[in-house]
Amino acid sequence: MSASSDKARKYSRDHAERFRHELHEFLRIPSLSGDPAHTGDVKKAAEWLASNLHALGLKAAKVMPTAGHPVVYAEWTGAGKDKPTVLVYGHYDVVPAAMEDGWHSPPFEPVEKDGKIYARGATDDKGQLFIHVKALESGLEANGGPPVNVKLLIEGEEEVSSPNLAPFIKEHLDLLKSDVCVISDSSMRTIEEPAVTHSLRGMTYIQLEVQGPKDDLHSGFWGGATHNPALALVEILGKLYNPDNTIAVPGFYDDVATLTKEERDMIAKTAITEEQFKEATGVPATWGDKKFTIRERLSARPTLDINGLWSGYSGPGPKTIIPAKAGAKLSSRLVGNQDPDKIYKLLKKHIESIAPPTVKVKVSLVTKGKPALIPFDLPEMQAASRAYEKGWGHKPVFTRGGGSIPIVADIADMMKIPVVMMGYGLDSDGLHAANEHYSIEMFHRGIETAIVYLEELAQEAAKSKPGKSRAA
Amino acid sequence: MSASSDKARKYSRDHAERFRHELHEFLRIPSLSGDPAHTGDVKKAAEWLASNLHALGLKAAKVMPTAGHPVVYAEWTGAGKDKPTVLVYGHYDVVPAAMEDGWHSPPFEPVEKDGKIYARGATDDKGQLFIHVKALESGLEANGGPPVNVKLLIEGEEEVSSPNLAPFIKEHLDLLKSDVCVISDSSMRTIEEPAVTHSLRGMTYIQLEVQGPKDDLHSGFWGGATHNPALALVEILGKLYNPDNTIAVPGFYDDVATLTKEERDMIAKTAITEEQFKEATGVPATWGDKKFTIRERLSARPTLDINGLWSGYSGPGPKTIIPAKAGAKLSSRLVGNQDPDKIYKLLKKHIESIAPPTVKVKVSLVTKGKPALIPFDLPEMQAASRAYEKGWGHKPVFTRGGGSIPIVADIADMMKIPVVMMGYGLDSDGLHAANEHYSIEMFHRGIETAIVYLEELAQEAAKSKPGKSRAA
Repeated sequence: MSASSDKARKYSRDHAERFRHELHEFLRIPSLSGDPAHTGDVKKAAEWLASNLHALGLKAAKVMPTAGHPVVYAEWTGAGKDKPTVLVYGHYDVVPAAMEDGWHSPPFEPVEKDGKIYARGATDDKGQLFIHVKALESGLEANGGPPVNVKLLIEGEEEVSSPNLAPFIKEHLDLLKSDVCVISDSSMRTIEEPAVTHSLRGMTYIQLEVQGPKDDLHSGFWGGATHNPALALVEILGKLYNPDNTIAVPGFYDDVATLTKEERDMIAKTAITEEQFKEATGVPATWGDKKFTIRERLSARPTLDINGLWSGYSGPGPKTIIPAKAGAKLSSRLVGNQDPDKIYKLLKKHIESIAPPTVKVKVSLVTKGKPALIPFDLPEMQAASRAYEKGWGHKPVFTRGGGSIPIVADIADMMKIPVVMMGYGLDSDGLHAANEHYSIEMFHRGIETAIVYLEELAQEAAKSKPGKSRAA
Repeated sequence: MSASSDKARKYSRDHAERFRHELHEFLRIPSLSGDPAHTGDVKKAAEWLASNLHALGLKAAKVMPTAGHPVVYAEWTGAGKDKPTVLVYGHYDVVPAAMEDGWHSPPFEPVEKDGKIYARGATDDKGQLFIHVKALESGLEANGGPPVNVKLLIEGEEEVSSPNLAPFIKEHLDLLKSDVCVISDSSMRTIEEPAVTHSLRGMTYIQLEVQGPKDDLHSGFWGGATHNPALALVEILGKLYNPDNTIAVPGFYDDVATLTKEERDMIAKTAITEEQFKEATGVPATWGDKKFTIRERLSARPTLDINGLWSGYSGPGPKTIIPAKAGAKLSSRLVGNQDPDKIYKLLKKHIESIAPPTVKVKVSLVTKGKPALIPFDLPEMQAASRAYEKGWGHKPVFTRGGGSIPIVADIADMMKIPVVMMGYGLDSDGLHAANEHYSIEMFHRGIETAIVYLEELAQEAAKSKPGKSRAA
């Protein structure tokens, strides 16, 4: 590590206590994005953050309006046009928290105890985003600025599915122009196992509704000559799968990227055994496409899950009806290079083609999101690996997340830049639950690693020819 | 018709207005068996009826206790031991009714309008059971008694599934001993189409529960290697049916009585066309076992219907879970000579045998009832046919009901006597609905037909050798 990076890291250690004090202030603002009663608090949190950034000398730091809660934007471009630009994404909004959920201390009165900061938002995501703010401050104060340009895009609607973020990015593509995006909004299993997520699954979520008779019928008077809509639904759903547990929708797998040996080897580093899977979930046995390992099935292969099923009567005792309707919610987790719109069309077409003439069937799209697959051999990913190794003491594994964070694919797609997910949380932080907390050690290690990452990016860029930067 | 029957019928016509006046009194008592607040009213209705019967000179008329609401019992055995005995079953309890449901007049203040009596219980079943009381009075007053012995068994819990009737019958088999049971608690389509129901379907109602993981799982983190319980349920349910819409449970059809040509011809008299079926139910097309006509499928063939289906999330929008559980309610309508217990065992065994090892499956019995099949060539049935022809002016058809009235099979089974269902209601009477009513013409025709039926039974018995009576 360079002398300037060492100086910045020393600065961060020297000011550790003040950094946490500021984080406490940030955590005290109940910025619940989903509760209209807290709209003022959400704005207050945005203003607090913008003002904190302004105090660093970032004159452009501002609260920018959207159709919903505002975005906080700030930039430091003092590294120069020949240097790469890093876009940091985070969110300052939080989910609800109430004492009656089992909190040991008020969720918006941060408490430090046993090396942890207890508060709503401590890990998700105020604590993790603040790492980047304090890494920037350390670079500015210790060296007059970090070795690369830094832009910050901190939204206030992540916990309500970011309805206004993609439009905001689209509208401000020039302003946001960068070479790489870093997101710290995820977690690792233990402090010794840092991980960089380089792949997320996308999603096509549909609703399937089957209508038989116009009203519920008496099953005695009409049973035997009426196609029960619940049975018709069962028949349709059954035809969506093959006997080997793969998905029977024609064309479904056409665009799935084939796993290379290198990729399978990387996935094998986070292998999960049948026993571990059973222990974690409580299922009697695992299931799925046996041509792939459990971890591959969970992260690198597409799925089709029934998320909900309903028809007729589900209360206690008997009710002898033929239901008028039956329905299901189905979601498909997609992997690179599947397209959610194409998958929706394939699902709809297949379901409509197998629907029997005895019922009416309706398929509608509920939500969708693109998968994200960032090759882990990209220079920006390898820089992240070295940053963890130096700042953290442990080399990270590149993991594939089975879940979906649509904004990752949106940023990668709209801005044409790699997104590097460097999570500084722990799986045990209790995000979205009572007594959410953040490890103080993770917070400070995070700041140092973020400082080193900026240096690694600068060195990576220096290795390439000058003028590599994609940013204006 | 004999002179005595003519005299009794004339008596009934001469006292028509008083009969209705008494029925009004009976209807004024809100004998809601399902509402504990009306327990006193239920008792009051029983006492009113016993007292009405007592006034006819039936000294044995009494209110007999059960574990729930009481039974009203009365008998007239003056015809002599060599004459057959008829058991009349009916119920004096009613379902709830409130003005806010859309009644045009208070449901417990009977109003006569346009040839109908409007009141809760008017057709179901106070009006219909009172027909037999007044037929008996007419025979007693005009001729010193009807030509056969008559016993009345009027319960107060029919609307809450008769939980105490079978035990009551079992306990009082000697007291109730009879040769035939008559029930008037059903309806015909129009006044010109009297019908005698000679078959009812039984039922085996089960609940099927599938458990996968111990809690709902995140479909992103666990999807692809977890057997979704909703899918497992779909797979199991799919395997309960054959491609020709018959039921795939081994042994299911073993005890189903084969339809004779005569029986199929009788069923054809109430044929329903594809168009009529679609019009009545709103389905796009009929369904079922094409080897049988629609009416046969609806009444003479067993079914397996899904009455309810549930799993995971059914609210608006997406929820990306793998549900921990999925469940279904399933009921099989049974025909002679299927046994509900045997069918339950077959269903349970088959479901358990096809359940995959990736989930846990639980099958439980919800309720059951035996089918009833009374051959329509029995003398007691043919006597009913002649009674309608003479008392009504129209010969009835013998129909098979697709629904289930467990008490019919219970009486036939425990007492070893035929049960003749002579319904004097109209399909349009609005039973269980607002503005329930009873046609005054149906009421009086019913009384006359009931008088004739007793005579027909006496003549039928006279044709056979003396001492035919099964009753003591």
